[in-house]
Amino acid sequence: MADSELPTRPKPEEAKEAAPAEGGESKNASKNALKKAAKEKAKAEKAAARAAQEKAQAAAAEANDTAKDLYGPIPETEDVIPITRFSELSEEYYEKEVTVVARVDNARVQSAKLAFLMLRQQGQKVQAVIAAAEPISRQMIKYTGGLNVNSIVQVTGIVKKPEIPISSATISHLELHIRKVYLISEAAQMLPMQVKDAERPPPTEAEEGQVDAEGAPIVTLKTRLDNRVLDLQTETSQAITWISSGVAQLFSEYMIKSGSRWIFTPKLVSAATEGGSNVFEVKYFKRNAYLAQSPQLYKQMCIAGDMENVFEIAPVFRAEESNTHRHLTEFAGLDFEKTFQSHYHEVLEFAENLLVFILTQLKERYAAQIAIIQKSYPKAGDFKLPKDGKALRLNYMDGVALLKEAGVDMSEQERFENDFTTAMEKQLGGIIREKYDTDFYVLDKFPMAVRPFYTKADPKDSRFSNSYDFFMRGEEIMSGAQRINDFKELEESMRAKGLDPTQEGFEDYLNAFRQGCPPHAGGGLGMNRIVMFFLGLPNVRLATLFPRDPQRLRP
Amino acid sequence: MADSELPTRPKPEEAKEAAPAEGGESKNASKNALKKAAKEKAKAEKAAARAAQEKAQAAAAEANDTAKDLYGPIPETEDVIPITRFSELSEEYYEKEVTVVARVDNARVQSAKLAFLMLRQQGQKVQAVIAAAEPISRQMIKYTGGLNVNSIVQVTGIVKKPEIPISSATISHLELHIRKVYLISEAAQMLPMQVKDAERPPPTEAEEGQVDAEGAPIVTLKTRLDNRVLDLQTETSQAITWISSGVAQLFSEYMIKSGSRWIFTPKLVSAATEGGSNVFEVKYFKRNAYLAQSPQLYKQMCIAGDMENVFEIAPVFRAEESNTHRHLTEFAGLDFEKTFQSHYHEVLEFAENLLVFILTQLKERYAAQIAIIQKSYPKAGDFKLPKDGKALRLNYMDGVALLKEAGVDMSEQERFENDFTTAMEKQLGGIIREKYDTDFYVLDKFPMAVRPFYTKADPKDSRFSNSYDFFMRGEEIMSGAQRINDFKELEESMRAKGLDPTQEGFEDYLNAFRQGCPPHAGGGLGMNRIVMFFLGLPNVRLATLFPRDPQRLRP
Repeated sequence: MADSELPTRPKPEEAKEAAPAEGGESKNASKNALKKAAKEKAKAEKAAARAAQEKAQAAAAEANDTAKDLYGPIPETEDVIPITRFSELSEEYYEKEVTVVARVDNARVQSAKLAFLMLRQQGQKVQAVIAAAEPISRQMIKYTGGLNVNSIVQVTGIVKKPEIPISSATISHLELHIRKVYLISEAAQMLPMQVKDAERPPPTEAEEGQVDAEGAPIVTLKTRLDNRVLDLQTETSQAITWISSGVAQLFSEYMIKSGSRWIFTPKLVSAATEGGSNVFEVKYFKRNAYLAQSPQLYKQMCIAGDMENVFEIAPVFRAEESNTHRHLTEFAGLDFEKTFQSHYHEVLEFAENLLVFILTQLKERYAAQIAIIQKSYPKAGDFKLPKDGKALRLNYMDGVALLKEAGVDMSEQERFENDFTTAMEKQLGGIIREKYDTDFYVLDKFPMAVRPFYTKADPKDSRFSNSYDFFMRGEEIMSGAQRINDFKELEESMRAKGLDPTQEGFEDYLNAFRQGCPPHAGGGLGMNRIVMFFLGLPNVRLATLFPRDPQRLRP
Repeated sequence: MADSELPTRPKPEEAKEAAPAEGGESKNASKNALKKAAKEKAKAEKAAARAAQEKAQAAAAEANDTAKDLYGPIPETEDVIPITRFSELSEEYYEKEVTVVARVDNARVQSAKLAFLMLRQQGQKVQAVIAAAEPISRQMIKYTGGLNVNSIVQVTGIVKKPEIPISSATISHLELHIRKVYLISEAAQMLPMQVKDAERPPPTEAEEGQVDAEGAPIVTLKTRLDNRVLDLQTETSQAITWISSGVAQLFSEYMIKSGSRWIFTPKLVSAATEGGSNVFEVKYFKRNAYLAQSPQLYKQMCIAGDMENVFEIAPVFRAEESNTHRHLTEFAGLDFEKTFQSHYHEVLEFAENLLVFILTQLKERYAAQIAIIQKSYPKAGDFKLPKDGKALRLNYMDGVALLKEAGVDMSEQERFENDFTTAMEKQLGGIIREKYDTDFYVLDKFPMAVRPFYTKADPKDSRFSNSYDFFMRGEEIMSGAQRINDFKELEESMRAKGLDPTQEGFEDYLNAFRQGCPPHAGGGLGMNRIVMFFLGLPNVRLATLFPRDPQRLRP
């Protein structure tokens, strides 16, 4: 049975629920407004009279209604009725009575004696049918078929095997024969967007404003994000938000198992220390504060505070005027910092194993969600991990060589003074997938010129640094490095990068090293990007609950 | 052996490390500065000559030094030497050689043939001793005894049983007889505060600026927080930061086990919706944004988005000019929101069990840390939990009655229009501890007048609401409630509280309910307060890594 747009029709419960005229509203009305108020009052009285008449008619109908206790607003009770979830339903339920709580995905009156509901629960759909047969009345059928789309209902019914599978339902091998239907929360009659219209991938530019083969409107990503609460109700969004939750959970699981301490560093900071113009300014009582662009300086201060192994999960703020598919002004940062004994590769290996753990476990624990997402985004299921469970690690210069082989040659100067462009990164991702059969890999030893001041130079070749980036499908998800832990070296590095060590804001940071600090390394991951690239989503906003960019602060 | 302040003395490595004059610095000097530069050059040359002479002398001494490879800056090597941690050390190590990495807590030259180091690792202390005997040279003893306090060293030595236990060490039944000592990171000679001076509870007002019985300065909380990195190195701070980490871990553990989804809602919001003046304003490109005071509206929007059971761990921002022992302008919020079937007490019980789980597990898993904190803060170990593992739940009016019994009578009006004052809350906490033998309890059914607009009124008595506060030692750690999930009721509640539902910022929130929303309840916990009250700390700043208040934005 194909879903169809719900026609506008008279609704019995509207009559019942006509709002009483609100008292007290004209209390402060000025004399000039009195005439207008009188007019409105007359109008309201007329409406009230009409409502009263309809109410009387409805009451008369109700008196003859054999089903009057079987539908309508949910009765108040503290009894706990056993509720069955859609995910529990199976053939074993055939001929059994169940009670479910779900949204109305669609409601349709077929005839005075027959109506259909499509019920939706976290994106999963089950069909329910109501037919006239004692004690089900015509009024109850009319009420059921007239329910507003997206309303939440409690439905009791018998699970039956349908004659033919219901192709428009996600659970197609059973349907519910309604006995009772109660309204828990009523949705407005007009919704700004239909949830089912958000169930497909966002359209290409050419498709915007078009309708699809079945005549349904193709909603743009903007419309979906403007109506994100409705958009979250789709099966795909439900699955994606589970993957996000999973990334955070797996990150914390790995860190805690490694003996790492969970830290909460301040987001309100006194100075813009990590590169001036990309910082949001905050009015802080009588002075200014700034929003931390990363917990970098503070997690290092925790290391100087002898905490040895720390992690943080917290928002990161970037005042960048970047309007791309992968930039946000606020995202969830997964940060860690760790001491090492002899070589920063101890920490690099720790981080590589972290990512292998997260990505492997996502595939294992969220196979059901990935399968759902794959229906809209075909790449979701094809993320390739290294077969031996060990991350592929190449040096930056290996990347340069691989690109050269493919015909992309960087000049000597470019190699040491620039980083790869996004296009080059993507191309390299393709080459590495081809050659090494993995979508996750690490580049080590980036040129010193492209890394921040706190990065430790390679002691064997100062053109390079002890720093690394992590990539998924050729796009960066993490940046990290060994940090300079010697005070004098740090001061010199600041000066070499044109920064002033005496600037306010650097003082507390520098003191941490002046007082002795063990060698350490770390990294910062973008959670939303991990979700995006793991699932092969076209836009990071799809991997973000309520995305923020230079244009978007709502909802 | 009593710790004593380190005297200033000449240091051999200072001579060795005299920095070479930096080239290139006068590159851009203007003509006017040339004369000054020439003067400085002459001065630098003099210094260089002096340094060269000292270096030559040091080299001569070194030539006769039988121990010259056994001390000094740590040699570069990628070999991984097995490192023993202080926590592993026991009698089983007597007469064995170990290598440790630790800070110099104190260094003292006893004679030309004998020196002592007190070593510190995450607050734990072990004494090390160095005595002249082949191949240990007098130069090595001088070097060791002259190490700057707080420097990080790698020490190899034989574990010995001391003749009498070393009372100033935390591990008093063994000492280390030094064979090698290498400098990993040197601390400056002058520190703004000694770590050992931060090892006691902050002084009372009367004690500020005083010295203790042994003549050591009593450092104030301000000094400790100004030098928080040093302060974090104390045994007590190490233990407290583990408790904070534990609270976050236990919260997420409980939520994940309950099937809750981890969410990340935006902290940058478009309007100040939760009570105007206490919100920080942010410059957001060409307009203003605000920092979310709580994830309240967004976690409810997730519920409207069919996510059913969600939690968040994220900073919360309050622009309150409150300078008290328990207020911060930024703290870690632990938030949850959950649908229920018949009654909000389903969620309340869920939250009660959450707190019982966290507090019980803190006692179990962090017994060692609690014992350490107890040395400075005696209440740390005496937090009373309900014996039967069930939270004590009273109604607000029961609290009013208990206070009345104790002679604190609120007028009829006060009962329904005010909340308890902080003093009343504390008194009630004492009464409840006395009567019910618990430091954790819940008050349910607060007056509607004192709760925010989204709170559901008690359907049986609209003077009250379906809302609850959680208390530890008589101070609030959580506020929560059933939320209004009906659109019209929500609009009316807003108007009743003097809010304008048409205000920008409410639109997205209200739409979520206009589109249908299941009944739900939730709560928000202050992580720092849980740590503070659980341990009986006198100030929430002690339970915060880098606290923020109206006066403090640093470090």
